[in-house]
Amino acid sequence: MTTFAKGLEGIIAAETNMSWIDGTNGVLEYVGINIDELARNSTFEETVYLLWNKKLPTRAQLEEFTKELREHYKVADGIKDRIKSIPSTAEPMHVLRSLISELAFYDDNPNANDVESARHKAINILGQAPGIVAMYDRARRGLDPIEPDTSLTFSENFLYMLNGEKPTETMARAFDICMITHADHGLNNSTFAARVVISTLSDVYSALTAAVGSLRGPLHGGANEGVMKMLNEIPSVDDVEDYVMNKLKNKDRIMGFGHRVYKAKDPRAKDLQKLAKQLATDTGNEALYEKSSKIEEIMEREVGSKGIYPNVDFYSATTYHCIGLKLDLFTPMFAMSRLGGWSGHVIEQLGDNRLFRPKAQFIGEHGVPYVAIDDR
Amino acid sequence: MTTFAKGLEGIIAAETNMSWIDGTNGVLEYVGINIDELARNSTFEETVYLLWNKKLPTRAQLEEFTKELREHYKVADGIKDRIKSIPSTAEPMHVLRSLISELAFYDDNPNANDVESARHKAINILGQAPGIVAMYDRARRGLDPIEPDTSLTFSENFLYMLNGEKPTETMARAFDICMITHADHGLNNSTFAARVVISTLSDVYSALTAAVGSLRGPLHGGANEGVMKMLNEIPSVDDVEDYVMNKLKNKDRIMGFGHRVYKAKDPRAKDLQKLAKQLATDTGNEALYEKSSKIEEIMEREVGSKGIYPNVDFYSATTYHCIGLKLDLFTPMFAMSRLGGWSGHVIEQLGDNRLFRPKAQFIGEHGVPYVAIDDR
Repeated sequence: MTTFAKGLEGIIAAETNMSWIDGTNGVLEYVGINIDELARNSTFEETVYLLWNKKLPTRAQLEEFTKELREHYKVADGIKDRIKSIPSTAEPMHVLRSLISELAFYDDNPNANDVESARHKAINILGQAPGIVAMYDRARRGLDPIEPDTSLTFSENFLYMLNGEKPTETMARAFDICMITHADHGLNNSTFAARVVISTLSDVYSALTAAVGSLRGPLHGGANEGVMKMLNEIPSVDDVEDYVMNKLKNKDRIMGFGHRVYKAKDPRAKDLQKLAKQLATDTGNEALYEKSSKIEEIMEREVGSKGIYPNVDFYSATTYHCIGLKLDLFTPMFAMSRLGGWSGHVIEQLGDNRLFRPKAQFIGEHGVPYVAIDDR
Repeated sequence: MTTFAKGLEGIIAAETNMSWIDGTNGVLEYVGINIDELARNSTFEETVYLLWNKKLPTRAQLEEFTKELREHYKVADGIKDRIKSIPSTAEPMHVLRSLISELAFYDDNPNANDVESARHKAINILGQAPGIVAMYDRARRGLDPIEPDTSLTFSENFLYMLNGEKPTETMARAFDICMITHADHGLNNSTFAARVVISTLSDVYSALTAAVGSLRGPLHGGANEGVMKMLNEIPSVDDVEDYVMNKLKNKDRIMGFGHRVYKAKDPRAKDLQKLAKQLATDTGNEALYEKSSKIEEIMEREVGSKGIYPNVDFYSATTYHCIGLKLDLFTPMFAMSRLGGWSGHVIEQLGDNRLFRPKAQFIGEHGVPYVAIDDR
């Protein structure tokens, strides 16, 4: 049977037992566990283990996984050197994409893609990604790199390598919840790209590089940057009403609202909303939170009945801003978290692979003659 | 409507007026023109212009396109420096993927993706790709880089930058025909990956990087390396019969035979077969050609009735070997050519974009409780 589905809407392209989304009711589960429960109780490390192994780890399993991940916090010397020579104008997403790709140079056997090897390569990439982002951000600010601290969690260590000081407990927990809630989300574009690329039996580096490239698009991971730009455009909470109504009148898009999948409030936004509020208070960013909250109130009043609600990008923007991240680091944060999900999908795909090879519909003429250049 | 199609087999995922394949009869057309006519009469530059513009260029249009392409033969200084520090053990496909990604660092506005900007970025990448491959290959052999010669065609210039001397006319033409015949081929995996990634409105660098990663897989571009390894395993033409019959008996795969799409002889293989024969004679590789030819004869006798015929990889392997390319440069050659097709698909996708966002079928349990670690 042959079907044309633009954007593959409605087409099932893979089976998974990682995440499940009920868009109508606004529910997200990882391996059957509600995202709210994970956000409250789990850690990013445990969540990644869950996604890859389809079960929560015992204490010993979690310790073993965490130990291996920490052994990969240190960025390969060749990558560290390369970071120093990258022009400081380069966007961090281009840097992350390129350097995840380059990690293959420093792997003795980068193409091994039996399921067990793929896990170790995924840990190699997931372990080094925070260091790559942190070191590049410091380099472009003219600061020396900070070596990792393997006594710290994934989230703590990233914030330490970025800022040179250990984060407060609230900040580390807030950041870790962002990592947990962004780790997987069905067959989104970047996850699909990773599965498409690994399906040629290429390699984990190729697959995750492709996913980073997809995520940087404004229709995908780039959206939370748009939210922050919008918040910066609005001078104060008193200007929100006019700003939003004006956008709606002109049929402009309000960034951070609406989602192809969710027709109810994005379940991930609920957790982030609480978090954003607490962090905004802690860090003196109350005005920003109030603007966000006011936008949501007006949008619910005006278009809530159409199923247009805040999505995960809306509150992650506020959160990352309060953590002190520059705008162009927002999408790399999303990537660092989603590396967990992408890797899980690569492992799933390798476990039951079939090459993705859809058809194109040819819409031109046939049997066109080749005409010599002077007769054209 | 919801359909599960493993590997998206039979699903139409895009419209195109670039290439069209009639697998049953073994026909391939680019923009309606038969690949045989293009292989005989066209050049790679003209073919790329055709794919991007859906018409053959006038002389003035071809000159303008060629001029811009030649202006990009020179590899960016930052990339040239990086090549020197890449470990010489790195596989050229990992290098090409990483450095196409890094070209974004040296573009003032890498994310512009209106159709016109996308064309210029594609030319930037297509122009530099041969230099990247040639310079890396020379660097790992301990040789100094050769600067490009902008008086040469795409194919001539690559062979010049690789070998330090201008190719013979036969060699340049043979190579150019390889470039023409590999430039586009419907919605193969790497082309599909490029369209998936650009559909987030990411950028041309991200899309083409993803495509290179896909192509390096053994189920896709990596296949011609497998053919060469097989040819090297067979001591002489007299050993072919036993080798092939033994493989068939054990149900092992004969590399370079069969294709998901073609059930007749791959039309691209016809052109390459002639070429491979001529080149083998010119370069003293008659024995290699005879082995290939003998394999084809036995395969036709044994399994031709099942629609298993040589595919494009089968004769491109012989061709590249005769040109003097090392085995791990075979797939980069494919990539250099296919950059033309990938870019054309990126341009098409940007012209009528819709985000690729298929669904996954969740096959696990729902409503699983979060159990505290000591109770697991």
